[in-house]
Amino acid sequence: MTPTRGFPKSEFENRLKIIQASMVADEIDVLLLTQEHDIRYVTGFMTPFWQSPTRPWFVAVPQSGMPEAIIPTIGREVMGRCFTGGVHCFAAPSNNDDGIALLARVIRDMAGPEAVMGMMIGPETKLMMPLMDMDVLVEAIGDPVLVDATMILRSARMVKSPLEIAKLRHICGLASDVFNAMPSWLKQGQQLASVFTMFKVNALQSGIDDVSYLVGNAGQGGYDDIISPPGEDPLVDGDVLMLDTGCVWDGYFCDFDRNYGFGNVSSEAHEAYELLWHATEDAIQGLKPGMTSADLFGIMKARLGGEDGDDDVGRYGHGLGIQLTEPPSHIGWDDTVLTENMVLTLEPSLSLSGGKMMVHEENILLTANGVEMLSKRAAPKLPIIQG
Amino acid sequence: MTPTRGFPKSEFENRLKIIQASMVADEIDVLLLTQEHDIRYVTGFMTPFWQSPTRPWFVAVPQSGMPEAIIPTIGREVMGRCFTGGVHCFAAPSNNDDGIALLARVIRDMAGPEAVMGMMIGPETKLMMPLMDMDVLVEAIGDPVLVDATMILRSARMVKSPLEIAKLRHICGLASDVFNAMPSWLKQGQQLASVFTMFKVNALQSGIDDVSYLVGNAGQGGYDDIISPPGEDPLVDGDVLMLDTGCVWDGYFCDFDRNYGFGNVSSEAHEAYELLWHATEDAIQGLKPGMTSADLFGIMKARLGGEDGDDDVGRYGHGLGIQLTEPPSHIGWDDTVLTENMVLTLEPSLSLSGGKMMVHEENILLTANGVEMLSKRAAPKLPIIQG
Repeated sequence: MTPTRGFPKSEFENRLKIIQASMVADEIDVLLLTQEHDIRYVTGFMTPFWQSPTRPWFVAVPQSGMPEAIIPTIGREVMGRCFTGGVHCFAAPSNNDDGIALLARVIRDMAGPEAVMGMMIGPETKLMMPLMDMDVLVEAIGDPVLVDATMILRSARMVKSPLEIAKLRHICGLASDVFNAMPSWLKQGQQLASVFTMFKVNALQSGIDDVSYLVGNAGQGGYDDIISPPGEDPLVDGDVLMLDTGCVWDGYFCDFDRNYGFGNVSSEAHEAYELLWHATEDAIQGLKPGMTSADLFGIMKARLGGEDGDDDVGRYGHGLGIQLTEPPSHIGWDDTVLTENMVLTLEPSLSLSGGKMMVHEENILLTANGVEMLSKRAAPKLPIIQG
Repeated sequence: MTPTRGFPKSEFENRLKIIQASMVADEIDVLLLTQEHDIRYVTGFMTPFWQSPTRPWFVAVPQSGMPEAIIPTIGREVMGRCFTGGVHCFAAPSNNDDGIALLARVIRDMAGPEAVMGMMIGPETKLMMPLMDMDVLVEAIGDPVLVDATMILRSARMVKSPLEIAKLRHICGLASDVFNAMPSWLKQGQQLASVFTMFKVNALQSGIDDVSYLVGNAGQGGYDDIISPPGEDPLVDGDVLMLDTGCVWDGYFCDFDRNYGFGNVSSEAHEAYELLWHATEDAIQGLKPGMTSADLFGIMKARLGGEDGDDDVGRYGHGLGIQLTEPPSHIGWDDTVLTENMVLTLEPSLSLSGGKMMVHEENILLTANGVEMLSKRAAPKLPIIQG
């Protein structure tokens, strides 16, 4: 069943409550957000317009009370329908002030000139405003103290609500069906670029909103990288093809891949596929709430062998939600405790001979009892396309 | 004819020469790039992997000699095929250093501990690395002086090469054909969301790589915003539908829109459409190299009337290339001189009664003689879909 688009107000009230409790604990007076996913998480503001790099967007969250949006006029209508206490608009683009004076006024009104201002400035964050404007902002506010608030949003976002889980389950199911139909149309002689196009068209026609992310590669017995745009060489006997997609429905991502062999594939590739499948299976069977990301990594590593950090991908999966990749990282050093209602990828990888590699990925929900599959489980043996 | 994908080495040599000449003039020892489009412009590095927010990517350009890439190991293979003098890889994600120590070493080797380091920190830029890591980087380099280098890349990128123009002409032509086929399948009763899907599918099947940006709206006699995701209301008699797309071919964008009326549309909407068409036509006929963006804005404003800055969009077009929107902005204050081989959008807009609006957009190349159309010119009167 297709979930309802959007969220009720109560969803945003819950998110705000969690965030503001952390702000109180960390003595942060105001939280300034500039990243698309953070702003969407707090307010529900969703638009493809983030592709347009001209104008910055800001949301300020006080320790109590509603978030305030400080945005270019072009977004007034859409943000007006979102979860905010007020929408403050500035004319943009501007030759001398892309909203900084207005933003400073809102922050001063909210928390005074000596506010402790939290921002997302730690690992995996970007500053989605000009760096030069940071100095201007700080001066215009007065004497604020800038602190790292990365963990506040990170912690809130890692645990998904039932409504978020429904959307993630839906997109993972849709993308699984697109993958599962591939053997009916995949053929030797096709170019990788045309495989990409077919995949995207099938995805869109199945009810997926966007194929925001699609990478893949093919080569004899494996592939040599996993982030290339598609090439124009035809698929031939002995190739292994991998497609990895981040499809989106109502702003929520899946992120998993599938491998397909063509004709007579090397025994090394068959064995690698099965080893990766079993490493994933070990994780699916063994993962319980209370384990850490490092524990989860360890379960898969135990099956695969090898040294930590000896592969290019650098981790065996991550969080998943309104971004293609979210914290935590399944890697030896990440001691994030995995709890009920986290949505995660399991993504073990192997280096093969001749500089080749293989990756395998599934999407799961962690429940009180263990793992619920969100992607439909890959076949235990490498699917072979004949002819 | 479909252009060749990618660029010959000479293209990147020319770009580097222009950038390094500006670095010499501005006394910048090293240019540090973190944004996807800047890195792609200098090195040719292209991957959908930028969707994955976990890992930062860096390119350092010396005053003379080749650019050096400092990137996560996962990108080694793809960056290895790009225009760099060296690819330095760091394990990522990391619990304590996402490449900063390595980046600092490369910059020190390149320009010493007291380098004048240019970064893209001015208008329309983002810092695509954690802000906290900036302090760590500065300390690890030694005593660098950070200066704004926004104008260096901006100036280089604004003027397109013949090979870039060929790609832009190609994508604008493809997207024009997708729009021109719309009246054959658009019908009252369709939901906007399904119109979006049809448009994307047709685009992909016509040879477009990705529909990276698609916004649109519909309403009686006009629409109330232009950045919403699509809704599920059916199109009805009297509606005006607008679709605005940034389709991509080999990393180059088009950015234009088309309007369609359904059945009996208000005379205000018909008149607004024609007024916008004529404002665009005035620009197409009147624009010559040597005029400024403000002059171009003035040509369109003279036809449309009204006060400067009284509309939500805030400008009447912009540059176009490897981003959906690039400098300059066609607006009263932008005195950027428009020269031969700039690719621009013309995008006048009008406010209508009842909070409605209408937008119109074309993509053009500025030549020595004036304007070459890249998008296929919109009809002079609002196309009407009957039934």
